[in-house]
Amino acid sequence: MYQSDRIYKAKPHLITRSLSPENQETPIHFLKESETPSPLTFRRNHFPYPAISIQSYFITITGSVKTPVTLHYNQITSMPSRTVISLIECSGNKRAYFEPKVFGEQWTEGAISQGIWKGVPLSYLLSFTGISAGAREVVFLGKDSGLKNKEHVHFERSLPLEKALDSNVIVAWEHNQKLLRPKHGFPFRLIVPGWYGMASVKWLKTIRVINHHFSGPFQSDDYVYYPHKDQDKDSFPVTTNRVNSIIQHPRDRQILKPGVHEINGLAWTGEGAITSVELSFDNGETWKTAPLHDTPQKYQWVKWSYSYVFEKNHEYKIMVRAFDSLGQSQPDKAFWNRNGYGFNEVSQVKIQIEK
Amino acid sequence: MYQSDRIYKAKPHLITRSLSPENQETPIHFLKESETPSPLTFRRNHFPYPAISIQSYFITITGSVKTPVTLHYNQITSMPSRTVISLIECSGNKRAYFEPKVFGEQWTEGAISQGIWKGVPLSYLLSFTGISAGAREVVFLGKDSGLKNKEHVHFERSLPLEKALDSNVIVAWEHNQKLLRPKHGFPFRLIVPGWYGMASVKWLKTIRVINHHFSGPFQSDDYVYYPHKDQDKDSFPVTTNRVNSIIQHPRDRQILKPGVHEINGLAWTGEGAITSVELSFDNGETWKTAPLHDTPQKYQWVKWSYSYVFEKNHEYKIMVRAFDSLGQSQPDKAFWNRNGYGFNEVSQVKIQIEK
Repeated sequence: MYQSDRIYKAKPHLITRSLSPENQETPIHFLKESETPSPLTFRRNHFPYPAISIQSYFITITGSVKTPVTLHYNQITSMPSRTVISLIECSGNKRAYFEPKVFGEQWTEGAISQGIWKGVPLSYLLSFTGISAGAREVVFLGKDSGLKNKEHVHFERSLPLEKALDSNVIVAWEHNQKLLRPKHGFPFRLIVPGWYGMASVKWLKTIRVINHHFSGPFQSDDYVYYPHKDQDKDSFPVTTNRVNSIIQHPRDRQILKPGVHEINGLAWTGEGAITSVELSFDNGETWKTAPLHDTPQKYQWVKWSYSYVFEKNHEYKIMVRAFDSLGQSQPDKAFWNRNGYGFNEVSQVKIQIEK
Repeated sequence: MYQSDRIYKAKPHLITRSLSPENQETPIHFLKESETPSPLTFRRNHFPYPAISIQSYFITITGSVKTPVTLHYNQITSMPSRTVISLIECSGNKRAYFEPKVFGEQWTEGAISQGIWKGVPLSYLLSFTGISAGAREVVFLGKDSGLKNKEHVHFERSLPLEKALDSNVIVAWEHNQKLLRPKHGFPFRLIVPGWYGMASVKWLKTIRVINHHFSGPFQSDDYVYYPHKDQDKDSFPVTTNRVNSIIQHPRDRQILKPGVHEINGLAWTGEGAITSVELSFDNGETWKTAPLHDTPQKYQWVKWSYSYVFEKNHEYKIMVRAFDSLGQSQPDKAFWNRNGYGFNEVSQVKIQIEK
């Protein structure tokens, strides 16, 4: 008799949205550890993966600096390092849930991961060059490139100088205590805790300090909230993560046996920290506070759970909302925007209990 | 410089819906071959995988037969075989699209596969036992079992005698020219072309001819169309596949460049054959006939494609409907039923063309 548990062992996989460029999300019921394993970490690309030569890999720091420098891979990885535990969430996470629906990759809830990132603080790198008076932003160019609006461009994004100098913003070469993997930005990925994932530029190649406002296509066309369908007015850039949550168990439309079930999931936010998570079983009339499994840490998700007795032959709607230290909470209705960023409506699942 | 195409190579995976029991579907844009590779073939289970001992694996044929027999694995696989190319579609395929939504595994479009199945015709097996007068149905019991409605039951289904004796109904031990894999029913799977997947019982263990109507929980509770939310009247069993189609390219809500794009996909039906596939770009006012890539074969899907010029800065709704030789076609609105079976509404995607 063969070992059925071995032969039949099933593993979760990423959910493939497209392969060129590769866009895959995590089935959220498997985000069980506080560090998402690298193979289960979502992948979001705008272009084909770049070819990398480690022998000749330099990062150039240039622009409004006193002394431009070019640093070799070995020089950077020999610098004093800092470890940051941070989630990274794609700003298009949950895009599939917008009503009216919007165009673009139809992420459900799994374009989020959390990891341990080790690298050198960007502020330390910039201390080699100095920063010229009047500097306003720092621009990060990735090695990935391709056609966009008929022009050949790299993926390129900027940060305000103040955020760039935050000690938690690092140029990372390790992910979960291993060398960064090629698909996640090897050799270097900028890590910007508190901001949506587009800020954490992969295959980082050039750092440019500028004294004006950057406007590349991934800054001024994409990753912009456009609140109107047919006009651009009232638009503003996508920056920090909105306060948000997911329900990992039960799954939406799941059929369960009667009795006690634990409802559980994650909650997170951008620059603040989660203060509480609430559940409602009566369509939002009353809310119960869910115990948090840990003291919420900035830039990290917190697990929550709540046990509830479910009666046979009933249907339930479970709603969940998170609050953060900046006074933000999940809205009853998502802020609709044309390109579908930052969906953080109150989370909900409907379940049915068996007879 | 490392080989980026090798290091970065991305493969599609099954989309994990649950792991215990294992339920995973195929991302449909990768159903490119007429035989779905075994690792990409969807998995739908009601119970944990059973332990199998091949040394002691017998199939018993019993009930309303003249001479009950017990046949060893080696005896069965030495019998004259027949090869059948057939699709298998879960009757819950596309369940996620019902409005109002229904409970149960939220399959999108990928609970379908097509394969080459080799085995012995069931009618040949039954020729060893003979069939008693008055026999009405043949019941198939799988080795997989577990609790359902508080009773320990096996997965068990019946076929009307006439269908059971159809020469295309086989007890298969090969899938795509290889030994059937454990997850797909090794050592034996009943293959019932033209019927939804629940009829193709895996880990087949007992064949029982009966002279009455079978009513196990997977025949009389599950796999029944209940047209009403709160009462059971007008219900009828799930049997043959409804005529259906999928659009594999473009994907719903995809953003494309202006110009010519090929729209392509698959169409299939149950006991008939596909006769035509039509597309509409004007909300169903006019329909164009899509060329089929092959002469439609019974029990197999047919590929279709249609090239169309898309103008910049426009949105398009593409609708697709298939017709079959039994005079059936995809309805404008799905037949809603409480457990969510047989969704075959006109297929559609909305896309946006770049500026």
